[in-house]
Amino acid sequence: MARLVQKFGGTSVADVQRIRKAAEIAVAAAAEGHEVTTVVSAMGHTTDHLISLAEQVTADPNPRELDMLLMTGEQQSIALMTMAIQSLGVPARSFTGPQAGIITEHRHGYASIKEVRAHPVEASLKRGEIAVVAGFQGLSDNNEFTTLGRGGSDTTAVALASALEAERCDIYTDVNGVYTADPRLLSEARKLAAISYEEMLELAAGGAQVMNARSVELAMDTQVPVRVRSTFEPHDDGTLITNFMSAPNYTICGIACDMSHASLILTSPVIEASRASLEGVSGLFTRLKELRIQTDMVMLLAREDEPSQELAFTVERRALPRVQAIIQALDSELGHPKLSIDTDIARISVVGRGLTARPVVVADIFEVLFNASISVQMVATGDIKVSALVPAKHARDAVKLIHNRFDLSGANCGS
Amino acid sequence: MARLVQKFGGTSVADVQRIRKAAEIAVAAAAEGHEVTTVVSAMGHTTDHLISLAEQVTADPNPRELDMLLMTGEQQSIALMTMAIQSLGVPARSFTGPQAGIITEHRHGYASIKEVRAHPVEASLKRGEIAVVAGFQGLSDNNEFTTLGRGGSDTTAVALASALEAERCDIYTDVNGVYTADPRLLSEARKLAAISYEEMLELAAGGAQVMNARSVELAMDTQVPVRVRSTFEPHDDGTLITNFMSAPNYTICGIACDMSHASLILTSPVIEASRASLEGVSGLFTRLKELRIQTDMVMLLAREDEPSQELAFTVERRALPRVQAIIQALDSELGHPKLSIDTDIARISVVGRGLTARPVVVADIFEVLFNASISVQMVATGDIKVSALVPAKHARDAVKLIHNRFDLSGANCGS
Repeated sequence: MARLVQKFGGTSVADVQRIRKAAEIAVAAAAEGHEVTTVVSAMGHTTDHLISLAEQVTADPNPRELDMLLMTGEQQSIALMTMAIQSLGVPARSFTGPQAGIITEHRHGYASIKEVRAHPVEASLKRGEIAVVAGFQGLSDNNEFTTLGRGGSDTTAVALASALEAERCDIYTDVNGVYTADPRLLSEARKLAAISYEEMLELAAGGAQVMNARSVELAMDTQVPVRVRSTFEPHDDGTLITNFMSAPNYTICGIACDMSHASLILTSPVIEASRASLEGVSGLFTRLKELRIQTDMVMLLAREDEPSQELAFTVERRALPRVQAIIQALDSELGHPKLSIDTDIARISVVGRGLTARPVVVADIFEVLFNASISVQMVATGDIKVSALVPAKHARDAVKLIHNRFDLSGANCGS
Repeated sequence: MARLVQKFGGTSVADVQRIRKAAEIAVAAAAEGHEVTTVVSAMGHTTDHLISLAEQVTADPNPRELDMLLMTGEQQSIALMTMAIQSLGVPARSFTGPQAGIITEHRHGYASIKEVRAHPVEASLKRGEIAVVAGFQGLSDNNEFTTLGRGGSDTTAVALASALEAERCDIYTDVNGVYTADPRLLSEARKLAAISYEEMLELAAGGAQVMNARSVELAMDTQVPVRVRSTFEPHDDGTLITNFMSAPNYTICGIACDMSHASLILTSPVIEASRASLEGVSGLFTRLKELRIQTDMVMLLAREDEPSQELAFTVERRALPRVQAIIQALDSELGHPKLSIDTDIARISVVGRGLTARPVVVADIFEVLFNASISVQMVATGDIKVSALVPAKHARDAVKLIHNRFDLSGANCGS
């Protein structure tokens, strides 16, 4: 007998039929003697529908009121999920995020969890109930309802698992685990039996949509073992996300591909060659941070040959109008740069600890792409990740070639 | 400058367009210098949709979880309404029932309001905001979410108006006031300029759907002046509901017609003639009360000529299966009664204080129906109401004939 937290995402509770299926999974775990807490998201496209209602009312919805609106989605799910569990003859009780003691910072739309006061949930488990908690939402310390931002239900589940000292947090979703590449993109992609937090984090940040990056980070910080598995194949063990020591030592564990970014390159002439002028750059990144616009692959290069500096980075394509406005506003601080934008790109992220240990891997990636005549616009290397920007039309080929080069579909690859 | 509470029902916030219209009404009142609190219902058929979801999950939804589910409807409305008001440039803030301090007894599905701790709403008004409160919901004293039952938003509005010592509570709905009869049934029905709480209560209990009976009762108890008016014709003053002294002295102020009831007549032979056997009857009514099944027109008659007793009453037609089951279970206590049920009836309620003062009015009603050969199954008279059951097919004629007999469309009738 152990404590388990199970999280069911939007597709897993999209309709009454699926809610029943999810309830059966929770009840089966309880029947095995586990103390079960489930965390549920809003049904299917509920959140999108509510956002569209708000946008019909006003172009600029108040963040507090948007949270008030959006949290109703998860609240509907917990009530229905609890009824479904009860109808299977097992006691259950629903909790909104605030009721479950999910305490966040006071920030609407993308609050971070500060603390979990899980006593009410603990008490429910001790009464023999399955506790059903609304994901994505919490209460700020000044008693305002907050939401955690997209993918926040994963974070709720991991935070609860940590607070409840659960043995494991199972993330039930519409895929049956983490793959070496997106199986919709590459049929030979292989499911991993296990992966380290660090590598999963890089894959998630690289665009693997299986789990929210922030929740992986939290799992890593709190050392909660996470299992990604499918609601529709509940007997499949899925993929275990665990610490570096316990995870298999893959050279490369996976390839993520993200098509939602755009690259920007700013070329500014500078007075004093070979030294970058940081005033404008610093102002730019401060502003981007204030607006919560995520950047990736940031590179700054001061060229000696001709007196200029180049700043390159990627942002989500939908943030592009705001980013361009910021750059325009900082035009003189940035030294009146020439701006070139490419929206027709794919970011390929290759993740694995073999990258640090064997730098030859990076060379292999270059070689593979070069041989296939796939142009590479930018490359950034991290500890366990290499990201490369390639033309969008070559994304699939690039993933396939790298996947083959490292034999990721082979049986000798730690599966 | 005064304090106003405005309540917008489900049809008044059925879509984004109507929410904007309601917001304009609130903002107009604020622009006139009033301190405005609005109470909103769930959008259109949201509540019905949520109930149907719950019923798809289980035939017998847990009442706590049903409340958890249903209250999301009003929560969506307050967020959207607040955004709409803000988009008109006026500060506003939403409050769920619990946040607005609506404290109820601990009972799910049909809780009564025990107390309103309106400090947060007061503070909002003092900051110059329009406070937007979710109707229909509250918090029990053991911190559980509760709902007030159908029509509960009216009750929330009146209770808040009382707690805030508001000058008036405006109930915005899809009709522009209280009529002498349902204008859909009778084109010559006339709108009343004012009516007393007592008479409005009888009309509401008699089936006039313009306002929930419980909320009228609360308004009477707390002496809150209520105005029923139309969201779509906001410049129409509607109908003022006020105390007996201030209201016009109508002989008859209106006729309500309810087609949703069924009549039951139980005929039991009794051992001892001329004395009714109350054991079974008392058991029956206790059980009906426990199940919150409302009865009306209860009559008990012990006949001397042949030793039998007759018990007659009406209930809502949808409660009929449960009522029959109860009667069956109490068969021997009730003296093995013969049961006759009529579902094809209309209950006509004639309301006005002239009924007590001038008993001839009752005779007039009988005469009118008799002359038209409309059979009357049961009649019950109260202080200011006479109810008669007539065949459903004659309902419209009965209303029309009584309306004409008392000249309710005439100009001399206090309008």
